Amino acid sequence: MTLSCQHQKKQSKWSGLFNEISHKPLPPPAVSCVLNPFPSPCLPPCACFQLLKALTPEENSLCQHGLYFQDGQRRVDYVLTYPVKKPSAGRSNSSSLLSSPAADVELGCPGETFGGQEDHKAFRREEFEGKLRDMGLELEKDEDTKVTGVGFVKIHAPWNVLCREAELMKLKMPTKKMYEVKQSSGVVEKISSLVSKVLEPLRPHVEEHHTKNIKHLSHTFSREKQHLFDLSDKDYFFDSKTRSSIVSVLKFTCDLLYEEWANYSVFYKYQPIGLVRKYFGEKIGLYFAWLGLYTQMLIPASLVGVIVFLYGCATVDDNIPSMEICHPKNNITMCPLCDRVCSYWKLSTACGTARASHLFDNPATVFFSIFMALWAAMFMEHWKRRQMRLNYEWDLTGFEDEEVSSDHPRAEYEFRVMQKSLSKDQKSKIGVTFAIVFGVILYRISTKAALHMSSNPITRNHVQLTVKTTAAIINLVVILILDEVYGAVARWLTVLEVPKTDKSFEERLIFKTFILKFVNAFSPIIYIAFFRGRLVGRPGSYLYVFESYRMEECAHGGCLMELCIQLSITMLGKQLIQNNLFEIGIPKLKKLIRYIRSKQGAFQEEERQKKLQRYETDHFLEPFAGLTPEYMEMIIQFGFVTLFVASFPLAPLFALLNNIIEIRLDAKKFVTELRRPVAARAKDIGIWYNLLRGVAKVAVIINAFVISFTSDFIPRMVYQYMYSPDGSMHGFVNHTLSYFNVSHFQDGKEPMDPLHLGYHVEICRYKDYREPPWSSTPYEISKEFWAVLAVRLAFVIVFQNVVMLMSDIVDWLIPDIPKDISLQIHKEKILLVDLFMKEEQGKIHILESSYRLSTGCKENCSRSDNNNSTAAHPRSGLLSVSCTTVRI
Amino acid sequence: MTLSCQHQKKQSKWSGLFNEISHKPLPPPAVSCVLNPFPSPCLPPCACFQLLKALTPEENSLCQHGLYFQDGQRRVDYVLTYPVKKPSAGRSNSSSLLSSPAADVELGCPGETFGGQEDHKAFRREEFEGKLRDMGLELEKDEDTKVTGVGFVKIHAPWNVLCREAELMKLKMPTKKMYEVKQSSGVVEKISSLVSKVLEPLRPHVEEHHTKNIKHLSHTFSREKQHLFDLSDKDYFFDSKTRSSIVSVLKFTCDLLYEEWANYSVFYKYQPIGLVRKYFGEKIGLYFAWLGLYTQMLIPASLVGVIVFLYGCATVDDNIPSMEICHPKNNITMCPLCDRVCSYWKLSTACGTARASHLFDNPATVFFSIFMALWAAMFMEHWKRRQMRLNYEWDLTGFEDEEVSSDHPRAEYEFRVMQKSLSKDQKSKIGVTFAIVFGVILYRISTKAALHMSSNPITRNHVQLTVKTTAAIINLVVILILDEVYGAVARWLTVLEVPKTDKSFEERLIFKTFILKFVNAFSPIIYIAFFRGRLVGRPGSYLYVFESYRMEECAHGGCLMELCIQLSITMLGKQLIQNNLFEIGIPKLKKLIRYIRSKQGAFQEEERQKKLQRYETDHFLEPFAGLTPEYMEMIIQFGFVTLFVASFPLAPLFALLNNIIEIRLDAKKFVTELRRPVAARAKDIGIWYNLLRGVAKVAVIINAFVISFTSDFIPRMVYQYMYSPDGSMHGFVNHTLSYFNVSHFQDGKEPMDPLHLGYHVEICRYKDYREPPWSSTPYEISKEFWAVLAVRLAFVIVFQNVVMLMSDIVDWLIPDIPKDISLQIHKEKILLVDLFMKEEQGKIHILESSYRLSTGCKENCSRSDNNNSTAAHPRSGLLSVSCTTVRI
Repeated sequence: MTLSCQHQKKQSKWSGLFNEISHKPLPPPAVSCVLNPFPSPCLPPCACFQLLKALTPEENSLCQHGLYFQDGQRRVDYVLTYPVKKPSAGRSNSSSLLSSPAADVELGCPGETFGGQEDHKAFRREEFEGKLRDMGLELEKDEDTKVTGVGFVKIHAPWNVLCREAELMKLKMPTKKMYEVKQSSGVVEKISSLVSKVLEPLRPHVEEHHTKNIKHLSHTFSREKQHLFDLSDKDYFFDSKTRSSIVSVLKFTCDLLYEEWANYSVFYKYQPIGLVRKYFGEKIGLYFAWLGLYTQMLIPASLVGVIVFLYGCATVDDNIPSMEICHPKNNITMCPLCDRVCSYWKLSTACGTARASHLFDNPATVFFSIFMALWAAMFMEHWKRRQMRLNYEWDLTGFEDEEVSSDHPRAEYEFRVMQKSLSKDQKSKIGVTFAIVFGVILYRISTKAALHMSSNPITRNHVQLTVKTTAAIINLVVILILDEVYGAVARWLTVLEVPKTDKSFEERLIFKTFILKFVNAFSPIIYIAFFRGRLVGRPGSYLYVFESYRMEECAHGGCLMELCIQLSITMLGKQLIQNNLFEIGIPKLKKLIRYIRSKQGAFQEEERQKKLQRYETDHFLEPFAGLTPEYMEMIIQFGFVTLFVASFPLAPLFALLNNIIEIRLDAKKFVTELRRPVAARAKDIGIWYNLLRGVAKVAVIINAFVISFTSDFIPRMVYQYMYSPDGSMHGFVNHTLSYFNVSHFQDGKEPMDPLHLGYHVEICRYKDYREPPWSSTPYEISKEFWAVLAVRLAFVIVFQNVVMLMSDIVDWLIPDIPKDISLQIHKEKILLVDLFMKEEQGKIHILESSYRLSTGCKENCSRSDNNNSTAAHPRSGLLSVSCTTVRI
Repeated sequence: MTLSCQHQKKQSKWSGLFNEISHKPLPPPAVSCVLNPFPSPCLPPCACFQLLKALTPEENSLCQHGLYFQDGQRRVDYVLTYPVKKPSAGRSNSSSLLSSPAADVELGCPGETFGGQEDHKAFRREEFEGKLRDMGLELEKDEDTKVTGVGFVKIHAPWNVLCREAELMKLKMPTKKMYEVKQSSGVVEKISSLVSKVLEPLRPHVEEHHTKNIKHLSHTFSREKQHLFDLSDKDYFFDSKTRSSIVSVLKFTCDLLYEEWANYSVFYKYQPIGLVRKYFGEKIGLYFAWLGLYTQMLIPASLVGVIVFLYGCATVDDNIPSMEICHPKNNITMCPLCDRVCSYWKLSTACGTARASHLFDNPATVFFSIFMALWAAMFMEHWKRRQMRLNYEWDLTGFEDEEVSSDHPRAEYEFRVMQKSLSKDQKSKIGVTFAIVFGVILYRISTKAALHMSSNPITRNHVQLTVKTTAAIINLVVILILDEVYGAVARWLTVLEVPKTDKSFEERLIFKTFILKFVNAFSPIIYIAFFRGRLVGRPGSYLYVFESYRMEECAHGGCLMELCIQLSITMLGKQLIQNNLFEIGIPKLKKLIRYIRSKQGAFQEEERQKKLQRYETDHFLEPFAGLTPEYMEMIIQFGFVTLFVASFPLAPLFALLNNIIEIRLDAKKFVTELRRPVAARAKDIGIWYNLLRGVAKVAVIINAFVISFTSDFIPRMVYQYMYSPDGSMHGFVNHTLSYFNVSHFQDGKEPMDPLHLGYHVEICRYKDYREPPWSSTPYEISKEFWAVLAVRLAFVIVFQNVVMLMSDIVDWLIPDIPKDISLQIHKEKILLVDLFMKEEQGKIHILESSYRLSTGCKENCSRSDNNNSTAAHPRSGLLSVSCTTVRI
């Protein structure tokens, strides 16, 4: 129910009247969003239908005429659906058929009775349809459809309406003028052409690259300048610039996408982004372009990550601290890990953990985390450039985002304003929202801490990798469940705030969802990295919570090992279960349920499928719910890749493997499982870019802390350069262990079995920097502790500022606009000036020649001309010019 | 010579041919920059001339006709000047008359002989003039001027050329449609109207506020849509939107500016920014708007700063550490401050310094530096909003900066490309540049250190405030001299790089100049804050440089006091000497020199002045050299205000006082001293915004370090919460002093006069955290040192990240576009859609009526129409429409 809410909020004040197949909110007064910039049918073509049922050519031609009005001439540009009240079929039936979008009936006009509501809705529907007609759109109703309880309104936008809207939207359209994009013949170009030849098999078999060197000069569309544009085929002019030349029928595009994109067997190829954009619009095109670049950028990151990991494996036998731990001669007796039940233990039993820790805790990880911080900066820069390039290729330069309908006040907001409840409440509500968000964050962290603390101290004695792994898996399950809960909480909080426009609603929702899901995914990890094992006290004076639970300690190798386990399980689990299983499974399940339900209806399924119009069959597809979940998934993954990369260098590799599948999975979903979304224009990825930047910033700080506090890197360095007698690491383990006199145990806390190791223990060791029992201030924090702490903190400052500076330099060195693009934009500008100049000269020329020709009829025309000019002049410059033309 | 270089580089490939009065680079092929968007005469009007000589009405009418061509009809839109080779007057004469812009003759065509050069120049001049004529401009030469050796070319841009260029530049012009900006009548509005009434006397007496509530709807100008615009007065249409209604003559604007802006007596008033923009264009308007906002924002900052300072004054007697130092009972014997010459001294003699230090080193400064960091973030945000508001009010929304001529390749670059020297060298050169810049930085810092070290150790004994002050003044002089040197170095480095476009040239130059001047201004301050007194060693084992010089120590109160002196002297001195003295003095001096030189010429000055045309007299004004020096001055000041504000809370106050004068000074300079600059369009302040952001970022880090390392804040806190027996500050001074056994002095380093204090000294004290002589590890760094260091570093991390986070939140909470502006933009969009709709309906209406009227002459016209349509159709949609009109 809460999930279906997601769709409710996107409805306009006309919501509850229609369900739009393409599921884009219809703003109350303007038409701009009804007029899709690509007025191809917003219905998935037959190829997408194929999955439901294979389509023979005859069937295709059968369903083809659903793409046109009854006259077979006018194309259907948009379809609205609405529930029809049938005397026999109850309301529950129709609404269940329509799934989520139908559940928003109450929103528009709350507090009305059922019957009155239906009448009222019919009235308002007509009012709305009247408005559409006033705007020049042509409508055709199809109420006697074979789908129970659903009425369809097919909409056709005539040429002149398209022109007007294109002008208002300042659409950039290709002019007749073409020019060649010259490839200069330097060494760099030769290499790049060689590279592109080598990479040829990676390109999808889509012919969009053939016309690459010829580019149409584009200019903002305007009816007065129609002569600049190639209007030979008006049916396809407003389609994308090359659609008419490459794919003559829409079906073909979809077939191509299905074969060359939404297909696991082409995972190694680039995506046909141009085609994706042509079919789904810029917004979705940008998402896939972003995902593609991210995946591509993950390749070097995972390579370096694997090398760092292998370096750890290779040097594990040269690592002096772990050698010292494992060496049987250094048989250090350690203090018990828990009260009474546990006994003394030999340090050499921690040999395995120590060796494993080295894999993730070696100098190479420091290098790797710096590398990844710069990688993130580089990725952001590359994306800016790619975006710029796409903007240029898609003729979006100059298009302003705000002009789209998302600026209109939301219906919900207007409703609240009507109720006048808004002005007073809003401020305080927003405050409450923040309080709740932060409350949830604090609650999560403290729960995490409490959960870890309460693990049974008896099993502590045999803390095994398996126990930790199980804990991590339980954690994962909790995360997955809470993820859904938090999504609902974020939505509820945003609704409380009553943002004014759809855009601000979406941004606020995304921001809140992001914060909550991020905290959810990372709070156990942050707990392990920074809080676990920090405040345990010391033998003889342990820190107790609730009087009885001793704070948790890490294994001897530091908490890094546990952090690594937790990270890998959360990341892999989230990816496998949430993303892939949920994304494939749930849509299939939903379709199955819908299918079974419709089978319970009056018709035979096969019969119906054949006779249904295309828009009727598409009605059974899942509506498009926005790109938010897709982006959210990826940004959380980006967090795993960058935030704790110092402790888990294999994260980029796992992310890469996931994403290779993810791209094709998403593609399949978009092509076959969802109703075709309205092609929305967008210049950038919006708030997601800012969130990515935020994650990259936080990553620098977190990595600095992981290296200096979670890993043993700094203590090792300090030992080597400040305390080591011979400048080597020998003696490091001994240096990190403090002494404890067992006679100082508190009463009742000493081990029950003091002779567990077979000999009497007088002094045991524990990992901390404290004074020995024989010093003047026994068990006090030692000078070494402060020295190590100071160096740790200094490292954080240096690391953070150096990496931030380097990121800024990367940001500054890589220009936001690729050089060739900026050159081409400049060239286009000059060409446009040229074109205008020539037009003008030509015009003058024609004027002169027409003057000579028209002098003959001048006297005859003068009467009507005079009338014309007096009537026309004050209103229309165009007409006055035309009169002048003849009068000259 | 190096300074005049600044103008040379701005010349195009036609450079050396003409000197432009308005000094804007003429790009080789395009016209856009010749056509000033405000084609009012680019000459300073008579009011500006007033300063040279008061102007009676008769004189005014006399010089008035210099504004028009000989026919008295066509206005002069632009004037080019060029040196005329006179047989009698030598080249040296003419070039000296023309000052800097004439010095660039060699650049265009190097290696030619003098005579050939002149001929060649005349030829190219004609070629250039031909090009101008081809573009539709009208030229009038005035070679027989009374100014020796200078020829003038007056340029007039006819209406159709203006229209074409306006269309190409996508100028937004006011349409006929006006609408009322409604003031909603909430409580907020009432308060704001009350506030604006109270602030009324602060507003300049300029009538631009009267039409505030009525706004013309603006739309991109296009000749086809001329009917949308109010073209009743074509002479003034392309002027700013309200010029025709407010100021009918340009002279009046200037008079107003002179009275209500460039006048010290109106220092308390707001600036008439709208008028400034009308007269000088957006770029200069933005500068003054920025300066105004900055000055305004300094008011709260200086208020808080003064309060913080007063808090320090008020609490100086409650400060326990300084009380302990001054108390005669605590008669601590200190170790000598230099070798042999100095002797032991009593801590109580440092009483004055300790008390003075408290003024700048108290808990309030911590609060103040956080406040200032947030203030900086707030300032940046406010500027973004103000900029947006100005963009809206000035109809710049939608205008793209890059379309201006600055994108054209620089002549110098093209010249280098011609020589083919570029491709290979450029990369390596850029590398060298960076190396040199960083070399200079390192050199400066090390020199600074060396300078301080070499101060005579004998005078050390009596280190007085006066000595420090003198040192600071010497420093200031060095800074002032090096500032000029660095300006030249930056220019030289940028020339080495050969940037491609004027814009990139300017940005690189600004960036380098900024870095060098910044380092120059702040390196002595950084040395004192962070390096001085850090590595002095300890008694018995001092650190020596060059075997003989002991590293410098700070006085007992810490280095903060000295930092404060250095800061105040550098800041005040720079402002007083460099900005005000130089800015007023040097232009006056230059004018005087030019005046004297011209007096040596053949004409009597008064005679000449009377008979000279306006453009001839304006020729004697200083050319406009760009806004870079003005911005640079302000950004260095911004550095003083933010970077070390923790140690000098009065900085904002001094900056405020300076700026109040600075605004009027700059205004006077622009109105009266400089040739009127070409009105350049700009949407933002460009690279300066990024530099400001950079300074604000660095300020956070530097303030964190100043508080934690330069001030005694952290040691005091650590003592109070970790070591103090009673939780008070009593005993702090004793705690910070270590013990030294005088028998441990190295041979030859002990004081010559050990009985200076009148008693035998066995143990002396020094400021450091070291073990006492009787410990097992004498004179080693103590645990306290590490503890204090760790807390200091932790403070830096916490401070930096908290302040950065808070800045980000400020950034995020304050929307970039003010709410009322975004509402109005939305409203305008709806109105525009409305306007178009009505136009269209009107057009159809007229078409129908004209059809009925024109049927009579249809047959007669058909012959010419057919001819027309066949000729016109393929070339011009406009004509084909016009034919259709008649044919219907």
